[in-house]
Amino acid sequence: MADLRPVLLIIGALVTLLGLFMVAPLLVDLAHDNDSWRGFAISMVITLFIGILLLVGTRGGPVRLSTRGAFFLTTFSWLVLCLFAALPFLLNEAPLTLTNAIFESMSGLTTTGSTVMTGLDEADHGILLWRAILQWIGGIGIIVTALAVLPMLKVGGMQLFGAEWFEPMGKILPRAQSFAIGIGVAYVGLTALCAFVYWSLGIETFDAICLAMTTLSTGGFANSDISFAAFSHGGADIAASIFMVLAALPFAAYILAVRGDLGALFKNVQIRGFLILLLILIAIMTFYIISVAHVGAAHPIRLATFNVVSIITGTGFGFGDFQQWGPMAAPFFFILMFVGGCAGSTTCAIKIFRFQVAYEGLRSYVRRMIYPHEVDTMIYNGRILPDSALYSVLGFIFVFFACYAVLAIGLSLTGLDMVTSISSAATAISNVGPGLGSVVGPSGNFSSLPDPAKWMLVVGMIVGRLEIFTVLVLFTPRFWMS
Amino acid sequence: MADLRPVLLIIGALVTLLGLFMVAPLLVDLAHDNDSWRGFAISMVITLFIGILLLVGTRGGPVRLSTRGAFFLTTFSWLVLCLFAALPFLLNEAPLTLTNAIFESMSGLTTTGSTVMTGLDEADHGILLWRAILQWIGGIGIIVTALAVLPMLKVGGMQLFGAEWFEPMGKILPRAQSFAIGIGVAYVGLTALCAFVYWSLGIETFDAICLAMTTLSTGGFANSDISFAAFSHGGADIAASIFMVLAALPFAAYILAVRGDLGALFKNVQIRGFLILLLILIAIMTFYIISVAHVGAAHPIRLATFNVVSIITGTGFGFGDFQQWGPMAAPFFFILMFVGGCAGSTTCAIKIFRFQVAYEGLRSYVRRMIYPHEVDTMIYNGRILPDSALYSVLGFIFVFFACYAVLAIGLSLTGLDMVTSISSAATAISNVGPGLGSVVGPSGNFSSLPDPAKWMLVVGMIVGRLEIFTVLVLFTPRFWMS
Repeated sequence: MADLRPVLLIIGALVTLLGLFMVAPLLVDLAHDNDSWRGFAISMVITLFIGILLLVGTRGGPVRLSTRGAFFLTTFSWLVLCLFAALPFLLNEAPLTLTNAIFESMSGLTTTGSTVMTGLDEADHGILLWRAILQWIGGIGIIVTALAVLPMLKVGGMQLFGAEWFEPMGKILPRAQSFAIGIGVAYVGLTALCAFVYWSLGIETFDAICLAMTTLSTGGFANSDISFAAFSHGGADIAASIFMVLAALPFAAYILAVRGDLGALFKNVQIRGFLILLLILIAIMTFYIISVAHVGAAHPIRLATFNVVSIITGTGFGFGDFQQWGPMAAPFFFILMFVGGCAGSTTCAIKIFRFQVAYEGLRSYVRRMIYPHEVDTMIYNGRILPDSALYSVLGFIFVFFACYAVLAIGLSLTGLDMVTSISSAATAISNVGPGLGSVVGPSGNFSSLPDPAKWMLVVGMIVGRLEIFTVLVLFTPRFWMS
Repeated sequence: MADLRPVLLIIGALVTLLGLFMVAPLLVDLAHDNDSWRGFAISMVITLFIGILLLVGTRGGPVRLSTRGAFFLTTFSWLVLCLFAALPFLLNEAPLTLTNAIFESMSGLTTTGSTVMTGLDEADHGILLWRAILQWIGGIGIIVTALAVLPMLKVGGMQLFGAEWFEPMGKILPRAQSFAIGIGVAYVGLTALCAFVYWSLGIETFDAICLAMTTLSTGGFANSDISFAAFSHGGADIAASIFMVLAALPFAAYILAVRGDLGALFKNVQIRGFLILLLILIAIMTFYIISVAHVGAAHPIRLATFNVVSIITGTGFGFGDFQQWGPMAAPFFFILMFVGGCAGSTTCAIKIFRFQVAYEGLRSYVRRMIYPHEVDTMIYNGRILPDSALYSVLGFIFVFFACYAVLAIGLSLTGLDMVTSISSAATAISNVGPGLGSVVGPSGNFSSLPDPAKWMLVVGMIVGRLEIFTVLVLFTPRFWMS
């Protein structure tokens, strides 16, 4: 860890960028004559000052990072951004406590969407916009991390999505720079399209923009205490379901789609698996609502679709409390929390490709059990699956659940009831948003939890968001040995 | 699957043996002038008749089994024995329903210990003895399966415990026959010793014998509706804690111990890991009871020890309702359900060695992440751990939780509340006994569950008992292709 300058340089750039983003809520508050603009102004000055200081102070250092430097940078940059992003919550006219500010900031940047704030329907526009911006930059942040950093670090099987992962789609990868621009354009473009659709369905301009940002980042913050339910008139829930699914697909695929290769998109094993799984789950839940739940829902398909998509993608928008649909709903959605979307999207949790890889591994394992003397090759997405990738994936799943169990136990130690503990742990580590039960369920929020529980959830969110290993590695003695 | 004769021959032998075991409750009921002896007489006639018929009918067939034959035999023999073992529950003076009889029979043979029977304190001696016998033969049955069958089939990393697993203890394996006799002697001897200790601590002879059989098999049936709590006067809980731990150690180790190599026992990584883990968990729970729970327990260490040991070994004896100790207790014991004891013991669940192997694999994985260009070798219990074994272990853990999730969802569909669903699924697949919550918790029982839930639990018990893959393999089309 000889030279920290490249790490500090990049963090300086990110902090500066974060400071620039504070202009938006500042202007919005000024335009609405809210006194809260002062909080944003002070936050911006502090953030820009430190960001630029870091940039200037690390000029002329080496620009290459070691593997260990990359691990350190990834975790550390998210932590630093979380601190600066919390400033506006602290310097607000109605300031949050330090714990709450960090919780809300981390929940935003990791696109979790759990909230400790209430009275959102009457909150100042600036702070609402800031929450949406945090999720939005967190969303693009994780796409970049997943495409550029995690495959290099071979975290949890992400090496399957290195430079060559588009080849099975029959395309040669565009050069890194134009690739990055393509991803950015897709993200901004889809967000703008989503905002326009929301607006055309009757949602106010400001809310439409905020909601679009938290939809495309699969974040789930909404400008209302009753979450998306406040905006669902006029069929906006249908639009939200579609855009949440789009946000859960690998963004790199949109570059191909724009180039005219729409078919290749559906030939991708991960995308196909995700969409088929969605259809099955929606069918089950629709059938359940109609036949068992007797909630008298006007649109059972819409209700089922929205909730399944919202939880599986880790968005966490609430639209009705599914816990009242009958006894199957809570465990059903509980397990969905662990699933996630496609790698290279804004979603978190275990993700589809890991289930597919694990399944292929198990099929091979069973074949070897029955025919111990035959050679067996595993295939994933049209190419040979190396044992090492399978092993990364299974290891990831194991450690994911181990961290989950530790978190759930830890939460229960703070005095939370069982359902709150086990569902809060799941919703944090999978970056979903709402938990289960009466406290943190779809119609509750996280404000009443004790402070130690909130800090544990903050740790759970960052560990889950960075695919567990990226953070855990920093806690091994070997990492720090030179 | 050309020739089923060797399979039927072995099943015939096992069924005949089961029939012979029915003599014991028959005689006990006769001695106590209970009319229930007739049920045992009829059951015995049927069981012996079919068992002997199978034996005679398959004479002269080949005696060698193929790998697939061994898979089929393992699952099928447990199912057939479960059916015949249920006869006495059906033909009793107070007969159970078919569902309840199969549930009780499967819960017995798999050493789970969940019960649907109430009024146990006044029940006939014959039926109580039968329940104890089922667990006792289930216990020795699983030791034999784990030592002789699963390593050959390479189920879930059990190949680590093949013929060579004693070498790290510095001993040459005795010949198969004397080895089997040694195991049998250890099991019978420890059971007799346990019964004697219980009796000398003031438990009535009959109850002492039954309890010893369900202790050494880590089964957990007890001759009272309040489970072990009815027998804990005089310190029998301390004895039970010790014998449950002994039952959770690999029985093969006792052969070495008897040969004078006591030191080697504690050098075994699995045994040492299990005992250290136990001490830590007991310390945590004792501390929790003293400092947080305020239950005014007279002996917090005894209470903590008994419950930790009872749940982690999957025995499932109840001694006080730990759910009243405070919010941490339920999730704590919930997670303990998945742990289990040592391979080659009577315990179920994931087992210590799999956690150790997974941990070693993850350490190696982290090392490879930090130093991608170095060669890395994994070591377990003093020998090189092959990638294939790690991969079996991680695959096992993954499929274990996948089956668990399916079972939990299925149970919730029958209308059970969330805590009952997720804890019943865990207690069944890990063969523990009690669940959590007010229905199936330590002070409840399984009689009030709907029939479909009971059948799902029956499936969960057998799948968990046979280490998942042994059963799942039978459901792959490839298995049935000739």
